[in-house]
Amino acid sequence: MSRNLKPKPPGQPRHRRASRRWSMLKKPIYLYLTAAILLVWSSAAVAQEAPASVFSGEAKVVADTIWVLFAASLVFFMNAGFAMLETGLCRSKNAVNLLAKNLIVFGLVSLAYWAVGFGIMFGDGNEFMGTTGFFLGGNDNSPAIGEAYDGVFSALNWAGIPLNAKFFYQLMFAGTAATIVSGAIAERARFVGFFIFSILLTSICYPMVGHWVWGGGFLQKMGFYDFAGSTVVHMVGGWAALVGAALIGPRTARYFEGKSYPIPGHNLSIATLGGLILWLGWFGFNGGSTMAADPAAISHIIVITNLAGAAGGVAGTITAWIYFGKPDLTMTINGMLIGLVSITAGCAFVTSGSAVLIGFVGGIVVVFAVDVFDNFKIDDPVGALSVHMVGGFWGTLAVGLFSVGPEKFSWYTADSGPAMGLLSGGSFSQVGIQLLGLAIVSGFTVAFSYIVWTALKYLSGIRVTLEDEKLGLDLSEHAMEAYPGFLGDEHL
Amino acid sequence: MSRNLKPKPPGQPRHRRASRRWSMLKKPIYLYLTAAILLVWSSAAVAQEAPASVFSGEAKVVADTIWVLFAASLVFFMNAGFAMLETGLCRSKNAVNLLAKNLIVFGLVSLAYWAVGFGIMFGDGNEFMGTTGFFLGGNDNSPAIGEAYDGVFSALNWAGIPLNAKFFYQLMFAGTAATIVSGAIAERARFVGFFIFSILLTSICYPMVGHWVWGGGFLQKMGFYDFAGSTVVHMVGGWAALVGAALIGPRTARYFEGKSYPIPGHNLSIATLGGLILWLGWFGFNGGSTMAADPAAISHIIVITNLAGAAGGVAGTITAWIYFGKPDLTMTINGMLIGLVSITAGCAFVTSGSAVLIGFVGGIVVVFAVDVFDNFKIDDPVGALSVHMVGGFWGTLAVGLFSVGPEKFSWYTADSGPAMGLLSGGSFSQVGIQLLGLAIVSGFTVAFSYIVWTALKYLSGIRVTLEDEKLGLDLSEHAMEAYPGFLGDEHL
Amino acid sequence: MSRNLKPKPPGQPRHRRASRRWSMLKKPIYLYLTAAILLVWSSAAVAQEAPASVFSGEAKVVADTIWVLFAASLVFFMNAGFAMLETGLCRSKNAVNLLAKNLIVFGLVSLAYWAVGFGIMFGDGNEFMGTTGFFLGGNDNSPAIGEAYDGVFSALNWAGIPLNAKFFYQLMFAGTAATIVSGAIAERARFVGFFIFSILLTSICYPMVGHWVWGGGFLQKMGFYDFAGSTVVHMVGGWAALVGAALIGPRTARYFEGKSYPIPGHNLSIATLGGLILWLGWFGFNGGSTMAADPAAISHIIVITNLAGAAGGVAGTITAWIYFGKPDLTMTINGMLIGLVSITAGCAFVTSGSAVLIGFVGGIVVVFAVDVFDNFKIDDPVGALSVHMVGGFWGTLAVGLFSVGPEKFSWYTADSGPAMGLLSGGSFSQVGIQLLGLAIVSGFTVAFSYIVWTALKYLSGIRVTLEDEKLGLDLSEHAMEAYPGFLGDEHL
Repeated sequence: MSRNLKPKPPGQPRHRRASRRWSMLKKPIYLYLTAAILLVWSSAAVAQEAPASVFSGEAKVVADTIWVLFAASLVFFMNAGFAMLETGLCRSKNAVNLLAKNLIVFGLVSLAYWAVGFGIMFGDGNEFMGTTGFFLGGNDNSPAIGEAYDGVFSALNWAGIPLNAKFFYQLMFAGTAATIVSGAIAERARFVGFFIFSILLTSICYPMVGHWVWGGGFLQKMGFYDFAGSTVVHMVGGWAALVGAALIGPRTARYFEGKSYPIPGHNLSIATLGGLILWLGWFGFNGGSTMAADPAAISHIIVITNLAGAAGGVAGTITAWIYFGKPDLTMTINGMLIGLVSITAGCAFVTSGSAVLIGFVGGIVVVFAVDVFDNFKIDDPVGALSVHMVGGFWGTLAVGLFSVGPEKFSWYTADSGPAMGLLSGGSFSQVGIQLLGLAIVSGFTVAFSYIVWTALKYLSGIRVTLEDEKLGLDLSEHAMEAYPGFLGDEHL
Repeated sequence: MSRNLKPKPPGQPRHRRASRRWSMLKKPIYLYLTAAILLVWSSAAVAQEAPASVFSGEAKVVADTIWVLFAASLVFFMNAGFAMLETGLCRSKNAVNLLAKNLIVFGLVSLAYWAVGFGIMFGDGNEFMGTTGFFLGGNDNSPAIGEAYDGVFSALNWAGIPLNAKFFYQLMFAGTAATIVSGAIAERARFVGFFIFSILLTSICYPMVGHWVWGGGFLQKMGFYDFAGSTVVHMVGGWAALVGAALIGPRTARYFEGKSYPIPGHNLSIATLGGLILWLGWFGFNGGSTMAADPAAISHIIVITNLAGAAGGVAGTITAWIYFGKPDLTMTINGMLIGLVSITAGCAFVTSGSAVLIGFVGGIVVVFAVDVFDNFKIDDPVGALSVHMVGGFWGTLAVGLFSVGPEKFSWYTADSGPAMGLLSGGSFSQVGIQLLGLAIVSGFTVAFSYIVWTALKYLSGIRVTLEDEKLGLDLSEHAMEAYPGFLGDEHL
Repeated sequence: MSRNLKPKPPGQPRHRRASRRWSMLKKPIYLYLTAAILLVWSSAAVAQEAPASVFSGEAKVVADTIWVLFAASLVFFMNAGFAMLETGLCRSKNAVNLLAKNLIVFGLVSLAYWAVGFGIMFGDGNEFMGTTGFFLGGNDNSPAIGEAYDGVFSALNWAGIPLNAKFFYQLMFAGTAATIVSGAIAERARFVGFFIFSILLTSICYPMVGHWVWGGGFLQKMGFYDFAGSTVVHMVGGWAALVGAALIGPRTARYFEGKSYPIPGHNLSIATLGGLILWLGWFGFNGGSTMAADPAAISHIIVITNLAGAAGGVAGTITAWIYFGKPDLTMTINGMLIGLVSITAGCAFVTSGSAVLIGFVGGIVVVFAVDVFDNFKIDDPVGALSVHMVGGFWGTLAVGLFSVGPEKFSWYTADSGPAMGLLSGGSFSQVGIQLLGLAIVSGFTVAFSYIVWTALKYLSGIRVTLEDEKLGLDLSEHAMEAYPGFLGDEHL
């Protein structure tokens, strides 16, 4: 992501200085001796300064690749986090269904994003979509081609790691977008509908939005900034989930005579485990989005990410404590998660103080967001919308509010980051751009999701029958139970 | 592993070019000025090109060590994956037993492989076994000794990382081989038998096979290739498990009057978690087997590994959907796992398209493999044989079928990889070698396991009594329950 | 940690040689040609020798940062390990409470350690505490300032990674110290008391002790060594927990008429998972404490750590097998954990044989330690005191017994490690220093904890009512259950 975070060609400054120094020497013959003298110094200089400049070329590719593969592994692990969180927050009679969805979705996305999605998102093409690079068939434009980069084509050539590493990292993000959906439509959606929707979302919708923001598309050109995906991943996943949840309708008996009846999840132990795995995964989600092991950048981003998650968790806990009278564990989890979602867009551009504030506001908002969705009878069993959509919106907006402005951090230049945020002393302009980008992405995702979910409704069906819902999706959709004989065993 | 993937001395080509350029200058005095001029250019060139050649020596050792320790940590985590998978797929009355076996086994293997196994596997010796290097007492042949390497002795000196890092990584593989066994003999084997068998397997049998294939032994010399252990780890673990399962006999009432009565596992939430942890761990299992942070190689391998796992999971799901009428979660898990096992031998040698095919075939086969074992009344509660043995066989064979042939990938030369595979346009020869290697390893492992399990049968007993089996191994073997008072607590 | 493990300025020797070589050339004009000749050689030499010396400057910072962030991520994950371990070892009616405590504590510690703790621990100040660097406001003293280091000020300037990375890694340790407390006071402590205690512990007590030992304080100057925190983390957490457990009192009906009635945990599946996650996390806990990717050091430390954990697990299993007649799973877990705690102080200073011995002794002791605490009616539901306090004591003492002495390992000099241990042929002196340090840290932590817990007793209350304890803390403190409708669902 943040394909704008174009690292300066490493060592260039010093090299340029060096070559300027030399170019004056190439002309007159009588300067040869002078050249020799200077060489003595400069060679010594090379030897002594070498450490400062050698971190480029192969060594940099190696370090960047290690970092990105490590980060990708953390993001991959988020699949386990979502699986545990969503399963734990739903009823045991639907546990197998949630586990199956969260497991198969990454298999499907891996194949779909390999075949189609990655090419649309980062392949050469136009401002709306890439049209090359399917089946990992594109040229490996690593290491960076440098000056050939023009912001539209060869979207990822600013990163020097192998194409396979770029794909692997980006794949994890596609997987995250898809897995957000499974939670919001849980406990009443048909397995086959989710199965097909996931393929289409990550083949078409998600990569197109990704192309606009990270692949050299029109939003990127417009100056819209979303460092690690508050919009690209969380808004897209969130809107796709919301449209699905709205079209599929709430769980039976969830709303009755104008009142809302929450249904508690069956296993908060694994839900909390899932939350902690997601927190861990976020270090890779944000920290790896540099696609390079820039020590200052990745250290900053990871600290910022953690502070926002921490502040969100504390804020969610305290808000629920005051509001409900008790520190509600699910609000600690949701607060922490919305803190992480909220900082995702701006983690490379804000200070640690702003991160705490962003996370804290998110943690307060999430407690009330659930009620808002409830008022519209949008039934979201695991709080995915409150966390990902609300957090995605707030995080994207926060870029326009809190960004410190270029040149404050070594990795953040006018070319690679947003204008100074409104609350940091900047103007409204970045806020406007962020809101415009949010509106465009939201409109497109809603339209896409509406069409696909509606088509699926008539083709395969998207909701189980009332009998099946009563019985539980585990038996009706999978003919299995999650915990047979848990408390003693009738077998043998 | 893949101790053949001998990296070329890094940077050498360019250095040689450089010294050739210079050597012509050393002779005539009147060339000094020319030298000076050239130096101007070349020094600038050194400054600018330096990055391309500096990645060797200490920097490379550091990067390789970080990569290998990261990969080893992922593989270590597979212990948790196996523990959750196996426990979840068995009954709650045997959960403590499975947890205890999966936890203690890594402790035992750590000590046994440190004391004996590592020396037999990679120590200097002959073509059948290493005879030195016990208790990590060998010379640290890092960084690579280079030319001194002769394919028999100092098996791991092609890798430049410290001996401790080599040991740590290899230890994780030994642990995996041992832990495969615990699943297949679950719910009726005695704890003490598994305890002793694990020590012997990882002290003797596994390291000997490892020596043959990776330690400079006769299979390695023969041209048998198993990049990350489809044979060495999964076939060995699988055969050891099969012999154990056969000798211990099926669980009571599992087969009755010619029919098979499957016994469902008690906790699919943790089983799915285990499956996802294993998927994650496999990135280290295959990606770390380079024992070096070669960016192109590790990126390729990780992508290939993931695609095969994804294809296997999708194939398993669809096959079960068609075959059983429902998408069976355990078949999604098993399909994904066999995809990963199948790609383990060839992940450095095949294309992404082949990886998808290999994984997909694995995912189909695994659904039917269970029935095959059932026909022989080999009772395998967690599907370990279908996944590891069948997958190990298919993966090892696939090397002979799909390998692209040398020089297609930068890390894959005629010295470091198999001949072109049959389906890539090659001959039958590599297929033949792969089958021969499989036969030899299988024969040895079966013989070893038969002797040890039979000896244990008379010495310590390998099967609990019928009463204990009914009661559950948790109470009979450990005097504990896994979930006392789970649904409310009578204490206090 | 181990802020004494000051790496030699990398590459310096060769550079100094190089400049000496050149300095003789700068004077006489007639040496220009000679200079040119030499340049030919030396430039070639630069090209060829470069690899050996370039691992410094930026490349080293990058590698060190990757390593430390990786290690920090592993330690972060220990939060999930503690959450699962503690929750699994307690009753289901208190599961939400334990999950909530283990989740919120890291949020609180993140904010508290960012605002105050890190400054007190590593900020410039005096020998008792740092007085600068709050809110990450200190100067980034990376890369290392070298000679300016004086052992008191700028405590972490021996490490070259960015300040944010240093903070992130150290934060994880603060989190660990706090989370140890939650287990020992489980099932009867009020949530609000733990909430406040955690903030104070990681704002004041833990950072002060950390300053003494790692931040340039008086214990560090005295020659007290605790490489990765047997004392700083585990003794501090352990004593804070013990004082809390003692003041809060045992769970009702835990001790009755002079006898002890153990209360089994409700979920050994997640407890074992937690144990395995902790084992994994320890590779980062000890391996990252170098704060640098020194290949030899980190490989050694990780192997040593694993061997001690393995030996502890095996010893705990065997001891319980002999003592109780059955291999007790919780003793396997506790044995493994005390092995890891015990090796934490000395992992950089001892041999693998000593590591096995240290872990093995720990694993035996832990089985009996529980009884000792029982005799004093200190009720510790998860064995936190037996593991962390006993292990922390033994590990700190073991430094004085088993350290090999300076110059045996490349990273262990007289400046950066303890004197040779008593059993390695050294004198009593290091043992004495270790015991003195233990006494001082223990005294301070006990005093601090006593004051804070006592104050909380009167301000907020630290123990729930008997009715609430009977009902379970989940309902009384959080108005939630962990597993509602687990075995079938009355909803709908």
